[in-house]
Amino acid sequence: MLPNTYDSQNCSIARTLEVIGERWTPLILRDAILGARRFEDFHSSLGIARNVLSARLSRLVDEGILERRRYQDRPAREEYVLTDKGRALEPVLLALLTWGDRFAAPDGPPTLLMHEACGHRLEADLVCGHCGEPVQPGGVVFEPGPGGGTPLAFRGPGAS
Amino acid sequence: MLPNTYDSQNCSIARTLEVIGERWTPLILRDAILGARRFEDFHSSLGIARNVLSARLSRLVDEGILERRRYQDRPAREEYVLTDKGRALEPVLLALLTWGDRFAAPDGPPTLLMHEACGHRLEADLVCGHCGEPVQPGGVVFEPGPGGGTPLAFRGPGAS
Repeated sequence: MLPNTYDSQNCSIARTLEVIGERWTPLILRDAILGARRFEDFHSSLGIARNVLSARLSRLVDEGILERRRYQDRPAREEYVLTDKGRALEPVLLALLTWGDRFAAPDGPPTLLMHEACGHRLEADLVCGHCGEPVQPGGVVFEPGPGGGTPLAFRGPGAS
Repeated sequence: MLPNTYDSQNCSIARTLEVIGERWTPLILRDAILGARRFEDFHSSLGIARNVLSARLSRLVDEGILERRRYQDRPAREEYVLTDKGRALEPVLLALLTWGDRFAAPDGPPTLLMHEACGHRLEADLVCGHCGEPVQPGGVVFEPGPGGGTPLAFRGPGAS
């Protein structure tokens, strides 16, 4: 287990980063979403040291994001399957990908996403679950919640 | 500048992580979205070493995510303001927060989000910009794009 990286921060962003913020972990999750299950799948996609990959996968199993499943007995072979908790990280990866396509892909997107249900290219929009309208940048207000977050107030004379 | 962390990866997720994946950077962006502008705002919120904070802010300026603005001449004082490119990272942070609220906040969300336009609590949904339907976990198919990504194929006999 890692030490808590952002110990001072009572914040769900920080807590999520503690679980998936290690180097390579988001790309392991990307590959898992794309269908990778076996150690060798991840290894050949990422090209990282086997001990690093092994540690990352074990951490994700400990966190309940991947589940280890035996798929062969002789010799024993296991694969790594996303749990529902792991699948719930898909929006994080889609958001990272969307930004990268827009601002860090000078030759165009390396990968295109298709929305399987409608068959069109996916440009995922974030909408409010209540009113159904798109969430505009800056259109969100933060308030203290039951988990005891301290509202951050930064409005000094230099702010507009 | 950092060395390219994920050099082998022609992938918009990896490219985004190269820009914002350093330790503390996502929380600097969180604070910027919440209204932090001055060095001392970020410093008191994060409690990190001044040289680390200074390096992270400069990197974000170099990347066009924050803009340095002089707000006082004598003595010279500058603040850091999100650009449109920086504001476009908001969905990444909302996705991280949403997952953390659900899976890493045993006492409830530290912070609640309100959708300013409708006044209700924001539970941001990801919808397809074409058909308007919610994007279900696993409902996205990846295909090679103009940027030359190699489609990753992982379907071995162990996969279902």
